[in-house]
Amino acid sequence: MDNPATLLPLARAARDAASVAASLSTARKNEVLRLVARELDRRREFIKQENAGDLAAARQQGMSDALYARLTVGDGTIDAMIDAAHQVAALNDPVGEVVRMWRRPNELLVGKVRIPLGVIGIIYESRPNVTLDAAALCFKSGNAVILKGGKEAHHSNRALAEILHEALRKNGLPEALVQLVPPVEREELYALLALDEYIDLIIPRGGEELIRAVVEHSKIPVIKHYKGVCHIFVDESADQDMAEAITLNAKVQKPGVCNALETLLIHRDCAASFLPRIVASLRAKGVEVRACPQCCAMLPGLKPALEDDWYSEYLDLILSIKIVADGDEAIAHIARYGSLHTEAIITRDYDHARAFLNRVNSSVVLVNASTRFNDGNQLGLGAEIGISTTKLHAFGPMGLEELTTMKYVVYGSGQTRES
Amino acid sequence: MDNPATLLPLARAARDAASVAASLSTARKNEVLRLVARELDRRREFIKQENAGDLAAARQQGMSDALYARLTVGDGTIDAMIDAAHQVAALNDPVGEVVRMWRRPNELLVGKVRIPLGVIGIIYESRPNVTLDAAALCFKSGNAVILKGGKEAHHSNRALAEILHEALRKNGLPEALVQLVPPVEREELYALLALDEYIDLIIPRGGEELIRAVVEHSKIPVIKHYKGVCHIFVDESADQDMAEAITLNAKVQKPGVCNALETLLIHRDCAASFLPRIVASLRAKGVEVRACPQCCAMLPGLKPALEDDWYSEYLDLILSIKIVADGDEAIAHIARYGSLHTEAIITRDYDHARAFLNRVNSSVVLVNASTRFNDGNQLGLGAEIGISTTKLHAFGPMGLEELTTMKYVVYGSGQTRES
Repeated sequence: MDNPATLLPLARAARDAASVAASLSTARKNEVLRLVARELDRRREFIKQENAGDLAAARQQGMSDALYARLTVGDGTIDAMIDAAHQVAALNDPVGEVVRMWRRPNELLVGKVRIPLGVIGIIYESRPNVTLDAAALCFKSGNAVILKGGKEAHHSNRALAEILHEALRKNGLPEALVQLVPPVEREELYALLALDEYIDLIIPRGGEELIRAVVEHSKIPVIKHYKGVCHIFVDESADQDMAEAITLNAKVQKPGVCNALETLLIHRDCAASFLPRIVASLRAKGVEVRACPQCCAMLPGLKPALEDDWYSEYLDLILSIKIVADGDEAIAHIARYGSLHTEAIITRDYDHARAFLNRVNSSVVLVNASTRFNDGNQLGLGAEIGISTTKLHAFGPMGLEELTTMKYVVYGSGQTRES
Repeated sequence: MDNPATLLPLARAARDAASVAASLSTARKNEVLRLVARELDRRREFIKQENAGDLAAARQQGMSDALYARLTVGDGTIDAMIDAAHQVAALNDPVGEVVRMWRRPNELLVGKVRIPLGVIGIIYESRPNVTLDAAALCFKSGNAVILKGGKEAHHSNRALAEILHEALRKNGLPEALVQLVPPVEREELYALLALDEYIDLIIPRGGEELIRAVVEHSKIPVIKHYKGVCHIFVDESADQDMAEAITLNAKVQKPGVCNALETLLIHRDCAASFLPRIVASLRAKGVEVRACPQCCAMLPGLKPALEDDWYSEYLDLILSIKIVADGDEAIAHIARYGSLHTEAIITRDYDHARAFLNRVNSSVVLVNASTRFNDGNQLGLGAEIGISTTKLHAFGPMGLEELTTMKYVVYGSGQTRES
């Protein structure tokens, strides 16, 4: 493959900047982040004006209302970005943490110490606030970052990058710590993904098509998040009020997100009582139900689910429901149709809770709580750069710690090796 | 790319076996490993006979003596494999470890729990003992493994796989927990590397060419170990007896391995005394020295180093030596020419030790100890499946823990999300 070299200088600059980033003090990093927050506030009009350019082009090209809303940066979005910058400044700096230390029989003292990954590439779609969030998290964790946002948000992203660069410059730091990829041809982007000498990790955030294209062309490890086909299993021992409240919360509170519920599994021993009530409540909230043959037999008038439904991430007010014989069948269903994202059991049975927690290896597994809690903020990581469903060493919500790795440090007193 | 489906059933079987592996008890896993040890002992003649077939073919094809020695399985190699099986059985099982647990303001109890990665592919060259070591480590950490050894060792590897399979069968476990890829065309292997739905991680062990080909064709994340261009920096404050002993140990005790020393950096303020004595000692051990212009000026008759020497992993009795102005220059040299593998400083200065440990981000960084300690056994991991120089979440020697990831578990009592 010919490598169009257009983005090579950018990748090289990022690698150089990474060594600066790795040795920045926590105080210095927080100062930059707080300055970013102030500049965002001071330059609201500039940001909204640049965003207006993107929005005008979007309207002309007939962008859907949902995408248009995502692209829009109003004062509320700017407030959220300011909050994010302050929030990341307030988080513990993971770099330099001695995670563990032990002594060897020959008196060597060996430790594992957190260090930044180095250069991280983030490829994302329309939301301009990702530019700010991703830059803040990568910077705080001591990494250089290369940001490739959607073409449709380029003016907005460029405005935000300018603010980030100004804060870096005013602190005497290289702008290459945060770089925005200019609009380029697809081939040039793919060529960037081959530069494994300069970039350590790629995190694509967006639709399945984007992610598959990145995986296809990247020689750099990719942490992906394909989709969230999340399950709740209502065990026969479940408190049915709790099961109903959690099911409704997981399905309707924000149906368009990856941790929303897509399939409800009901133990057959409580289906006769729970199925009619949950279907009625779901319908009252405008949810369309697609059901297995057993459900349809039990409750006439339900729309039958097709095989494809069990694989579907609806991201909409649709829910598939299946009656299962027991926990084993629920776990087998999740293993077959799930996406390793988020699964919950609702139960009052100690052994069933334990079995579900032990045997389901999705990134987040819950007992008696909503799937909507799979989120870095909700779980207490402070912030997240995405949710990994790649079964790699980072799995689930990725906070600052997941943007680091560890080196070994060894304190000796002249030890040599005999064999 | 057309996907020749020959290896698809193998990958699918591995994925199915992985869910069995993940839920095996520690006792059961150890039982299998101890049975493997007994069977290796009982079937020594069978192993050596199969190995003889590989060796005869190797002789006919004019294999080099070094490679022939690596390929040979004698009683010593079998003893080492038996020891390895016992040793891995004795290691702590990482699966299920609760690494951390915390309570959220809404009373959710959130924890991170170790789980296996899933399916691991190991691609390696001639040494048949890798078959046993890799299988034992992947099995103990709850993973299914796909092994692709060198064609030249296929009879030996098949014999070892048969022993592993027998131990699995006798314990009622699926043979697909450990699978050996039969000799296939390169295209079929590359097609296997595209099956990211079934395989979670690829670890190539071997020459740079092998590793580059794997990275080029893999859609699955690859943890690589390109090469070890290891450095020792002798600070001006160093105890010169210690510096000499460590330098000699790192260079000559086993020159053909990745953690052997390749470049020695000497602070200019101690070069006048240290350079002549270390060159004399190295020469007495048969080491060829290639030196920077400053060294050559100080000690006439030295062979000048070329630019390429600073990048070289000699794996032989050759050492490049450079005089540097200070720690900054040493660290900059390592950043430019190093391979992120192993670097050591020899010093009596507290601040210099601290600066070197903080600023050098190679996988293992040592003070006053030999680079030869970059090894899972030596650092106390018990055993290793390889040394990652990929700046990914596993970096440095990879033991059992590095073959796992973590899921989040959440204990709730009916919590739902408001926003």
